[in-house]
Amino acid sequence: MKKSLGAKTLIVPTPVWCVGSYDTKGTPNVMTIAWGGICCSKPACVTISLREATYSYSNIMERQAYTLSVPSEQFVQAADFFGLVSGRRVDKFKETGLTPVHSELVDAPYVGEFPMILECKVIHQYKIGLHTQFVGEIVDTKIDESMLDGDGGPDIEKIRPLVFSPGVQHYHGIGKCIGKAFKVGKKSE
Amino acid sequence: MKKSLGAKTLIVPTPVWCVGSYDTKGTPNVMTIAWGGICCSKPACVTISLREATYSYSNIMERQAYTLSVPSEQFVQAADFFGLVSGRRVDKFKETGLTPVHSELVDAPYVGEFPMILECKVIHQYKIGLHTQFVGEIVDTKIDESMLDGDGGPDIEKIRPLVFSPGVQHYHGIGKCIGKAFKVGKKSE
Repeated sequence: MKKSLGAKTLIVPTPVWCVGSYDTKGTPNVMTIAWGGICCSKPACVTISLREATYSYSNIMERQAYTLSVPSEQFVQAADFFGLVSGRRVDKFKETGLTPVHSELVDAPYVGEFPMILECKVIHQYKIGLHTQFVGEIVDTKIDESMLDGDGGPDIEKIRPLVFSPGVQHYHGIGKCIGKAFKVGKKSE
Repeated sequence: MKKSLGAKTLIVPTPVWCVGSYDTKGTPNVMTIAWGGICCSKPACVTISLREATYSYSNIMERQAYTLSVPSEQFVQAADFFGLVSGRRVDKFKETGLTPVHSELVDAPYVGEFPMILECKVIHQYKIGLHTQFVGEIVDTKIDESMLDGDGGPDIEKIRPLVFSPGVQHYHGIGKCIGKAFKVGKKSE
């Protein structure tokens, strides 16, 4: 028996990604989001949704660029802090001691200590309602060499990203491998 | 030391959601995606990206509605199968024995056995490149009563959704709770 919960954004899983941007003075800012996802394979694009009221929204509108830094479990406290306060009043990099690294490819900084980062140029922005979607073309993906698997790709079990549950607002880690995509379902054919 | 992997869609985590739609004859279809995410809080909206070549793309263009059904770990085989074959040649519900339930709110079916579902009306579509983004307004979220937590919200540890890793293409489960959002980061203030 299914229970109706109403017109709410309660789906799981949602990501925990930290959006890097510069303000007009060039001060690096970073903000945590869960509203986003990959939205195109060619060109490789990722979308993030921000409220107009946020400092990051103004920054990204101005510079038309952002980064995504993927926090691992060990950085949960900093990642949560990045979502708690505004860059208007706090230098979040300074406060946490994390390092803003200037991207050489786009006009935005990323979190040097986080294991995986994406550098994005804004190619579209769509106002949906309270949130505006920025579509960023992924110019590069960078990853700590220690986080690669045997085939040279990102190893999620090493990266240990966070998953956000809307509603209860918990962060969870990643569990065990359940199967290989485009393979495990062949048994059903 | 970070290694550059190029302009690729390798970020983690990404979701595993099954998109329900009807074709012109009213046959229910379902397709698994990882390219999507929540994109607005008010109105509550979720976006999914589909290639024009897919059967689901044509269905959703026609009916302007879709559902998202969240598979739990136990349904990994069916969820993967839904992404392996086209609804043009296979009735995926019939093949897996899962039940297409007609939504009373939108013109699309959902997977009755999956623990959590969203019913969505398309309010925007944006062609990005290979993929087109559909923005769906969430009309209702429904969940199996056994999947609720003590506060009446979705319990991710009961739902046990899948997480997809692009690149290596593995499905992972959800791990342990790492902390409460908007709380654990207050220690950094």
